[in-house]
Amino acid sequence: MPTEPACPLCEKIKNAKLNHADELVWEFKESIAFLGPWQYYDGYCIVTARRHVTELFDLTPDLRHTLMDEVNTMAKAIHAVVKPRKMNYEFLGNQVPHMHWHLFPRQTSDPHHLQAAWLDIAEAERDPKKKQQWQHCPRGRSAMVIALQHQLQQ
Amino acid sequence: MPTEPACPLCEKIKNAKLNHADELVWEFKESIAFLGPWQYYDGYCIVTARRHVTELFDLTPDLRHTLMDEVNTMAKAIHAVVKPRKMNYEFLGNQVPHMHWHLFPRQTSDPHHLQAAWLDIAEAERDPKKKQQWQHCPRGRSAMVIALQHQLQQ
Repeated sequence: MPTEPACPLCEKIKNAKLNHADELVWEFKESIAFLGPWQYYDGYCIVTARRHVTELFDLTPDLRHTLMDEVNTMAKAIHAVVKPRKMNYEFLGNQVPHMHWHLFPRQTSDPHHLQAAWLDIAEAERDPKKKQQWQHCPRGRSAMVIALQHQLQQ
Repeated sequence: MPTEPACPLCEKIKNAKLNHADELVWEFKESIAFLGPWQYYDGYCIVTARRHVTELFDLTPDLRHTLMDEVNTMAKAIHAVVKPRKMNYEFLGNQVPHMHWHLFPRQTSDPHHLQAAWLDIAEAERDPKKKQQWQHCPRGRSAMVIALQHQLQQ
């Protein structure tokens, strides 16, 4: 797979197997799903492409279809486990351009469920106490990883 | 195509041909691309599915591939016209769940290019003067629509 030496996500993909049981959710053919840091969005995952690509149109149609099917499979599993009001699918890459899809399940219990998750995340980034709360996973990260894996195996 | 009577995007799709020349960019098989309101992100488009679907996994694999190819084609055209630092691809649906993809070209000239566009948009929504500035299209909306169409025809 094409990689970039200085890219933190190429590094993360290379070392995926060394990841703790509280992070590595699933190894797909073209991507790896990790449990994301902001577990205020219970079940939030990041699907990271194995290849160093930075735009949708960097992929051949076949690769793009495979990758989007993997994003779809992961979103469906999250949806089945946490039953959100709506899934949010976001590929930004403003900070790290290597393709990674944020999959945020949005719940009605979130008072800001009508807005993008990034507004609360930006606030949490600025406030260490809120950051800790926002990153806390109520059922435990390993338990969430196992629940998602169980769903993906079905 | 399946529609929902009370859905504003089903209504928008139905009336797409009535849209002004400053909004309708392209009619794809499974979606229609409209020039979005926040032209601070020069070239920002919204690719709206023709069908009333609300999650990626509501689509059959074939339909999903076609739709993502259309999102990709539109992103590539925006990229060619405005040459951004990075494209942002977002399907949220928190306010209107009918599938629509926000395609934001992000430029280095934007002092907040490392963060999601929604933070500045939320601020602009609260401030009528900023809203007007943020919605202003420097080259004119019709000229932008024509530039994108010209690119898509190539």
